[in-house]
Amino acid sequence: MYATKLRDKWREGHPAFGFWAALSSPFAAELMSIAGIDYVCVDQQHGLADQHDALAMFTAVQARGAVPITRVPANQPWMIGKALDAGAQGVVVPLINTREEAEAAVAACRYPPHGTRSFGPVRAAVVGGMKDNVKLAESVLCIVMVETREGLANIDAIASTPGLDGIYVGPADLALGLGLPPDLDKTEPEHVTAVQSILDACKRHGIVAGIQCHSGKSGRAYAARGFGFVTIAKDTAMLQKAARNELQLATVGDDAARDEHVGYT
Amino acid sequence: MYATKLRDKWREGHPAFGFWAALSSPFAAELMSIAGIDYVCVDQQHGLADQHDALAMFTAVQARGAVPITRVPANQPWMIGKALDAGAQGVVVPLINTREEAEAAVAACRYPPHGTRSFGPVRAAVVGGMKDNVKLAESVLCIVMVETREGLANIDAIASTPGLDGIYVGPADLALGLGLPPDLDKTEPEHVTAVQSILDACKRHGIVAGIQCHSGKSGRAYAARGFGFVTIAKDTAMLQKAARNELQLATVGDDAARDEHVGYT
Amino acid sequence: MYATKLRDKWREGHPAFGFWAALSSPFAAELMSIAGIDYVCVDQQHGLADQHDALAMFTAVQARGAVPITRVPANQPWMIGKALDAGAQGVVVPLINTREEAEAAVAACRYPPHGTRSFGPVRAAVVGGMKDNVKLAESVLCIVMVETREGLANIDAIASTPGLDGIYVGPADLALGLGLPPDLDKTEPEHVTAVQSILDACKRHGIVAGIQCHSGKSGRAYAARGFGFVTIAKDTAMLQKAARNELQLATVGDDAARDEHVGYT
Amino acid sequence: MYATKLRDKWREGHPAFGFWAALSSPFAAELMSIAGIDYVCVDQQHGLADQHDALAMFTAVQARGAVPITRVPANQPWMIGKALDAGAQGVVVPLINTREEAEAAVAACRYPPHGTRSFGPVRAAVVGGMKDNVKLAESVLCIVMVETREGLANIDAIASTPGLDGIYVGPADLALGLGLPPDLDKTEPEHVTAVQSILDACKRHGIVAGIQCHSGKSGRAYAARGFGFVTIAKDTAMLQKAARNELQLATVGDDAARDEHVGYT
Amino acid sequence: MYATKLRDKWREGHPAFGFWAALSSPFAAELMSIAGIDYVCVDQQHGLADQHDALAMFTAVQARGAVPITRVPANQPWMIGKALDAGAQGVVVPLINTREEAEAAVAACRYPPHGTRSFGPVRAAVVGGMKDNVKLAESVLCIVMVETREGLANIDAIASTPGLDGIYVGPADLALGLGLPPDLDKTEPEHVTAVQSILDACKRHGIVAGIQCHSGKSGRAYAARGFGFVTIAKDTAMLQKAARNELQLATVGDDAARDEHVGYT
Amino acid sequence: MYATKLRDKWREGHPAFGFWAALSSPFAAELMSIAGIDYVCVDQQHGLADQHDALAMFTAVQARGAVPITRVPANQPWMIGKALDAGAQGVVVPLINTREEAEAAVAACRYPPHGTRSFGPVRAAVVGGMKDNVKLAESVLCIVMVETREGLANIDAIASTPGLDGIYVGPADLALGLGLPPDLDKTEPEHVTAVQSILDACKRHGIVAGIQCHSGKSGRAYAARGFGFVTIAKDTAMLQKAARNELQLATVGDDAARDEHVGYT
Repeated sequence: MYATKLRDKWREGHPAFGFWAALSSPFAAELMSIAGIDYVCVDQQHGLADQHDALAMFTAVQARGAVPITRVPANQPWMIGKALDAGAQGVVVPLINTREEAEAAVAACRYPPHGTRSFGPVRAAVVGGMKDNVKLAESVLCIVMVETREGLANIDAIASTPGLDGIYVGPADLALGLGLPPDLDKTEPEHVTAVQSILDACKRHGIVAGIQCHSGKSGRAYAARGFGFVTIAKDTAMLQKAARNELQLATVGDDAARDEHVGYT
Repeated sequence: MYATKLRDKWREGHPAFGFWAALSSPFAAELMSIAGIDYVCVDQQHGLADQHDALAMFTAVQARGAVPITRVPANQPWMIGKALDAGAQGVVVPLINTREEAEAAVAACRYPPHGTRSFGPVRAAVVGGMKDNVKLAESVLCIVMVETREGLANIDAIASTPGLDGIYVGPADLALGLGLPPDLDKTEPEHVTAVQSILDACKRHGIVAGIQCHSGKSGRAYAARGFGFVTIAKDTAMLQKAARNELQLATVGDDAARDEHVGYT
Repeated sequence: MYATKLRDKWREGHPAFGFWAALSSPFAAELMSIAGIDYVCVDQQHGLADQHDALAMFTAVQARGAVPITRVPANQPWMIGKALDAGAQGVVVPLINTREEAEAAVAACRYPPHGTRSFGPVRAAVVGGMKDNVKLAESVLCIVMVETREGLANIDAIASTPGLDGIYVGPADLALGLGLPPDLDKTEPEHVTAVQSILDACKRHGIVAGIQCHSGKSGRAYAARGFGFVTIAKDTAMLQKAARNELQLATVGDDAARDEHVGYT
Repeated sequence: MYATKLRDKWREGHPAFGFWAALSSPFAAELMSIAGIDYVCVDQQHGLADQHDALAMFTAVQARGAVPITRVPANQPWMIGKALDAGAQGVVVPLINTREEAEAAVAACRYPPHGTRSFGPVRAAVVGGMKDNVKLAESVLCIVMVETREGLANIDAIASTPGLDGIYVGPADLALGLGLPPDLDKTEPEHVTAVQSILDACKRHGIVAGIQCHSGKSGRAYAARGFGFVTIAKDTAMLQKAARNELQLATVGDDAARDEHVGYT
Repeated sequence: MYATKLRDKWREGHPAFGFWAALSSPFAAELMSIAGIDYVCVDQQHGLADQHDALAMFTAVQARGAVPITRVPANQPWMIGKALDAGAQGVVVPLINTREEAEAAVAACRYPPHGTRSFGPVRAAVVGGMKDNVKLAESVLCIVMVETREGLANIDAIASTPGLDGIYVGPADLALGLGLPPDLDKTEPEHVTAVQSILDACKRHGIVAGIQCHSGKSGRAYAARGFGFVTIAKDTAMLQKAARNELQLATVGDDAARDEHVGYT
Repeated sequence: MYATKLRDKWREGHPAFGFWAALSSPFAAELMSIAGIDYVCVDQQHGLADQHDALAMFTAVQARGAVPITRVPANQPWMIGKALDAGAQGVVVPLINTREEAEAAVAACRYPPHGTRSFGPVRAAVVGGMKDNVKLAESVLCIVMVETREGLANIDAIASTPGLDGIYVGPADLALGLGLPPDLDKTEPEHVTAVQSILDACKRHGIVAGIQCHSGKSGRAYAARGFGFVTIAKDTAMLQKAARNELQLATVGDDAARDEHVGYT
């Protein structure tokens, strides 16, 4: 599936739901994809995948009908280029604090004259078809993360960056930036306000807002509020939670652990 | 953790619970281990792991306090030897139909004069300490699977094999052998009877009975019936079930899928 | 793509053309698949791929619309089972000399009561869908190789094995067996006769005949003679031939090497 | 083979021809090397290889008598250092636009006092012999790419960088920079002029000019014009073209595709 | 073992000894760990390990009771973050020349408000326990390398960086910076003076001084002088020296090579 | 280097010395090779290498001038074939007890009519040159291990197997077979007698005798007694011994551990 699948959803006013792939396992990514999810994001920043794993994961995700996205480790053009050459249909770029940084991220996703991406679409050419490659390349998503006080202060400058497709909220880093304990689905007023201000900026500038959630339940709530790129769960956390729950059922006979989230893996 | 941890549990009359590792991911195995499980079994028969992955998985499992076990692809001595040399504390050997096959599996786990294992305990020597290596080597578990009509017919001959530590029920293959649809936690009378006959044979001959289950809930029930080596869930199935459930929560708002099992991954 | 794609071709009287993947590179397999080929066969016998690579290659091949087949290293049920569990839509089993060996190969591809395949369709379940899994599993292709004098002598006994889908000619081994230099596209009368006798037996027993060729040109000729499973080229040989040719063009200015085949890589 | 092999060729006025390795396969690199090519360049920018693969590829290339070169993903000293420590005999550094960037690339290739390379020649020490290591290290090639308007504007400043060994033309990126469709072997006058200006600058400053080509035929032509480091083909493109051609021969019976280039893989 | 094990040693006035892991082999790292060493440092700068190997090596080292440390390739926050997320208990950051660079390295190791580390402690969370994760994260070691003239000139500014845990001497690069042949255990007066000035600065500012040595013998001497983080040998060098020595014993019958060091692998 | 290098040594009456590669690290194998050793044997039975690693290790060993040999996990023709196809110049086949088993091992190494090796010399063809491939293939070494009482009893029947190149003593397994503690360099009279009987049989039948030793010193002694294929040390053991020794020097100040062997890694 290409990035256009997500663009179509957004055009029609629907949210796109996704899973986060922190394990470097192509098959785990394939398993999540067959659930019918819209996208799977391979995390190269905090997850275990490197560029090699990422390529195999993009292949598996796309084969099962989901859109392969990746979070790059940092806002460096070569990382973004390698991810897109490998067939990612979009990048999530962490720790964007200024308009200049957002512009650099966008530039790394587009070929001249719209950007500075170097040409050599190895696997991307194969996935997208020879003829349409340059056009398809232009459709890949560039989503940046705002997760610091500085980023918040510059939210309109960032959100109005030409060519930017969306802003993704990193709730845990944002919490640390606000002096709060790091977590997802935060309810402290100042965190809620900060998240809302990002969502509002995205709406003002006509781009999609995204956020990382702890569960389908909270993801549904965020989508109802207007988030369009909603990551509902991470493979490592789902596995850890399920393991804890099954063991509890085996040993104690009840699953008290069920609705508790299990941490930061 | 060494095989002795499981032996101690059994001596005290407690069941050992385990997870099944079908993904070839050491970190997924580590995640399951920190839940506090007794053992993690790396599946080299139907799972994705090969001998290389298995070694890294044994390292990770043992580091987090669980006992690393592995199912080998077939009853071939070199496979059993490589698994034990890599640090597995026990092997599950599939498709054992006769006393001779059970004896061969046991022999492959023990050094002469008790068996035919070739000496070269590369990583096993490091894990278990130089001095105690031969002794520790003798403590590794040899568990065979009975999962065919022929195996059932020979159950006492198999269960009484000297040096054998246990028999593991493969409910899905057993079902196919009985002309039933393959699955775990089967309730058809003839399947229940077959499973019971294996459990009874194990009790008669003083060895542990093991079984593969769909959940902690059914695992708890099997343990209550006397099974001592009880695999309560598989990483791939837990991940797939959780993904399906979270997506259902996000899109439909309820988790009807919750107690449904998701198949054979 | 499932094995049914090839079965449909044969039902309609069309040959299926394939490439041979000796490199252990999923992307090389993907490149060959997008050419529009019917199948790509991952060679685990003489090629560089192991089971791990094979899984990634099956994923890539199928994602690009070709049918993933694999040649296993030997006629051992666990190898066949792992290949099918990983998503191969068919196996090519080398060095089959007798009816018993052919029956064992077939049995390893089918679940009881039709065979002895052990149940645990990890990735195959994901690829083929939960519900239809057992049925789809039954559609995988079992193709055996006849490549020795003994096999030739038993050709009718082999070709009439119930459940067998086809016989694949290994021209190089067959040549060695006949006392000829090993190669493909052989023209010595006794080799031609032997190949014809295999083709005739396949026709007599209503199964497909396959053969390994040096080029699309010779593949076309074999297809015209009635072969239905025709491997026209190998990645390593194509790469080596192209490299030799380009270098010749660069240094000498003509491509005399063009139609020469370059050997056995 | 050491970098000195290429230096010797150039001293004698001969061009060096090379293949481009975009697959991350050491054996594919080995196959290209035995064709008798002068160098094989492992592409870490747009190709699939990472540092790990690169080391194995350098080993294989050198073992078969070709000189292992690598294109690093970006002009970062640590990447250049790791490539050289792993045994690369030269680096191609992409996207050099200014004299300062060229100087930084050169500095990353040389130990103090000539540069800033950090000392730790792990595999390079083994390949080149203990005693001669520092000296050999100084012989590795530093080749930078000029592929933008800015780079063109600074061509003399770049070409005159002390210690620089050559400039490599990236025709596709250069085309994009000039507002033309990205491709190799371009014939638009402004592209031809730009390429010529790079070649002239190299001649003026006594360094080698290199270029990426689509075929041995065009490589021969570029060599005749004075290019000394001429990449005549890429593994992925050769494989894709050959696959397309063989399939065409099998299905249509003629190889119209033969001289068509197949794209950007 | 956590970083606190090393901190405890230093508090009690004892040196910590370590091995350097240049091979990318988790088992080689495990072998070195069982010798009873305090730490093993996975070298991602000059060694063969990448982030993937590093994770497996951290797992193995910690499992055998040593503290896993890693040298990152460069002073880039994302590299430091990935290493710590993977479970490293400390980083050695090369080529620090100024106070600003030292501050950046420290910041990359600490979460806000003490630094800028991004939150997502994947494996670190598993290793250190959920609850205590943020606290444990704050205990990881940040050690920077001073190995240039510029760094020497700024030694007090660097050593007084808040949050910095130590300075590690890279004798070979330092030698090159001073115009001397690169090596460890250097005896030229100016090198000795430079090393002493780093040690003195560490003592003045209450942080640990570390150094890379050629042998346990020289390591013991450096420890006696006050170094607290003393790397006594590298896996590659130990293996190379031992191989040379055993071969000498086999062929010549004496081991003259014994005390000779073998170079820079 | 080809097997002929070892054959030449033996023809001239010289022993060949080798190292044993139990780590799955191509670079560790390369390090051992540059010491000037005659062969390096990649251990796929008790070592960590699988077929994939083995290929990379053969490439590295041969590139540095040593002959790549491998011990296969078991006496199965497909394993031997894959090893030879990957470029091994000889195989060591464990646990040979009878003439029939020895004949099967030899047959797996030779093409018809001399044996049953299947044709498909992928990398072997590249390494050895196209034209000479079949001839070179015939020169690969087939060495079997005798390490049980049964093997001892059949020593003449085994040693006289046509086409067999040598018999390799596995002292540890042989010790276990004789009821002695497993180790190398054994001095118990019955072990010495058994080893001598193997050496004598080899001499009687004009084939080479080989043995695994703990050190260059003992290897020298065995060579003096007439052994021609003498493995003097293993990478894991050298590394472990060196690590222990360096740590002893660092902490205690003397290297009492020096001549102690460290076990079975």
